Amino acid sequence: MPSVFSYERRVEFCETDAAGIAHFSSLIIYMEQAEHALLRSLGLSVASSNTTLANEAESASKISWPRVKVECEFLSPAMFEDMITVKTSIALLGSTSITYQHQLSLGSSLIAHGKITSVCCSKSNGSLSSTKIPSKVRDLLIPYVA
Amino acid sequence: MPSVFSYERRVEFCETDAAGIAHFSSLIIYMEQAEHALLRSLGLSVASSNTTLANEAESASKISWPRVKVECEFLSPAMFEDMITVKTSIALLGSTSITYQHQLSLGSSLIAHGKITSVCCSKSNGSLSSTKIPSKVRDLLIPYVA
Amino acid sequence: MPSVFSYERRVEFCETDAAGIAHFSSLIIYMEQAEHALLRSLGLSVASSNTTLANEAESASKISWPRVKVECEFLSPAMFEDMITVKTSIALLGSTSITYQHQLSLGSSLIAHGKITSVCCSKSNGSLSSTKIPSKVRDLLIPYVA
Amino acid sequence: MPSVFSYERRVEFCETDAAGIAHFSSLIIYMEQAEHALLRSLGLSVASSNTTLANEAESASKISWPRVKVECEFLSPAMFEDMITVKTSIALLGSTSITYQHQLSLGSSLIAHGKITSVCCSKSNGSLSSTKIPSKVRDLLIPYVA
Repeated sequence: MPSVFSYERRVEFCETDAAGIAHFSSLIIYMEQAEHALLRSLGLSVASSNTTLANEAESASKISWPRVKVECEFLSPAMFEDMITVKTSIALLGSTSITYQHQLSLGSSLIAHGKITSVCCSKSNGSLSSTKIPSKVRDLLIPYVA
Repeated sequence: MPSVFSYERRVEFCETDAAGIAHFSSLIIYMEQAEHALLRSLGLSVASSNTTLANEAESASKISWPRVKVECEFLSPAMFEDMITVKTSIALLGSTSITYQHQLSLGSSLIAHGKITSVCCSKSNGSLSSTKIPSKVRDLLIPYVA
Repeated sequence: MPSVFSYERRVEFCETDAAGIAHFSSLIIYMEQAEHALLRSLGLSVASSNTTLANEAESASKISWPRVKVECEFLSPAMFEDMITVKTSIALLGSTSITYQHQLSLGSSLIAHGKITSVCCSKSNGSLSSTKIPSKVRDLLIPYVA
Repeated sequence: MPSVFSYERRVEFCETDAAGIAHFSSLIIYMEQAEHALLRSLGLSVASSNTTLANEAESASKISWPRVKVECEFLSPAMFEDMITVKTSIALLGSTSITYQHQLSLGSSLIAHGKITSVCCSKSNGSLSSTKIPSKVRDLLIPYVA
């Protein structure tokens, strides 16, 4: 049975729009934040250098994960102060990329779902190039592969 | 030949992230803003009531366009102060929904493309229900169908 | 001794900027979110209609609280994933306005502080006009007056 | 007569909130964007390295301008698609800091005004320390001192 990571996020006022609902971009950002929370729960981090892992993962702290693909569907709106649960697992763990899949619910209702693909990149001289996912990162993520 | 709407948008500082590039959600928002600019250029508006059209479109001013689907691919990053050109046309003009397609370029390089589907909704008693796209709105949009 | 409300907020990736730190507007928004969390803890809400209070406060659910003044100082930067503590109390409880004061800390270091003044407004025919703070709202807030 | 820089900015949908108006943080961000546009008009940039100035200002391209103080008043709300004019000048040009002053108008009505103070900082080893404003930057800004 694959692990599924669960993340709770309340809709903030500045995330609502004049239609009275959470702006769709906020729901996409909740998906990204769930991914970050999953990585954090594993002692990893998308961008910071304060990882708790040594050696290889230390060099992994210089990697970043730009997004290359986003696919989302929005089924019903979320309102200010709604507490949304994001369920996150991994649809595809490639050699240089990860496709996360997310389900956003409000109580027992699914309100949105989506997939976001990130590519493992290293920076040198200011430019990004894709690189193999460090094996320690990969090992930590394998339980979440659906 | 279908019309293609062109919209220019500079990357603002608050839209960049600690990876030094425009956050991916900003590029998705540029697509939405290009859609709004297209509607505005036609005397329509996504949400306001100051449309210049009478009668049917006046009632159209009570409609809103929640997004039900987003699909984007990001090919290369955009940086602070980059001037991005969004080319927008319509991939699908349904009876209650519109799928816009967007291409984001930096100079001659395509950096992202995506499709966003909005559903024409009317609000009554605070809840949204899908409704037929007003014919005047449809007539104005037909030239942009790819 | 006045009560002080405490609110925890992690810096999200999309809130950082190309300088590698949390964009200053994010810190201001944390102050607003602490205010909302305080109101929520009292069974009130800035904008929603799902208040638990009856009668007067029910009509209070139609009020909104536009901001009329913001004053902030930023002492040191916050980074991605930093967990910030916001301490919130009330500097001034007027008849139609509230000035909240906020202190943002990272561990034992104060990193920012600010005051935000909201005016109690009721909406009629789409326009906002200031109105007396409902007495039940006022009674609930009095313990937080510094 | 001091110069005043003028910047136009339309309220975007994602910047509105459930109260139906532009979120106050958006108006503060417009002030920052007017500052950036002013710097850009002078061939400078807040954060990028593509300045057109040589020598000293080239090293100035390594400086950043974190904000240390924000003071704003909001007089009346702005709505989706409103075209706001920001008038920007400099209230105080210190040796290491600049206090910009901004007036936001909608047609002939002042809707907000504010002051934002930035400190000229250089980055070394990832930490920021205040530094003297490069004299070429200062010379270019002097005409805007009120």
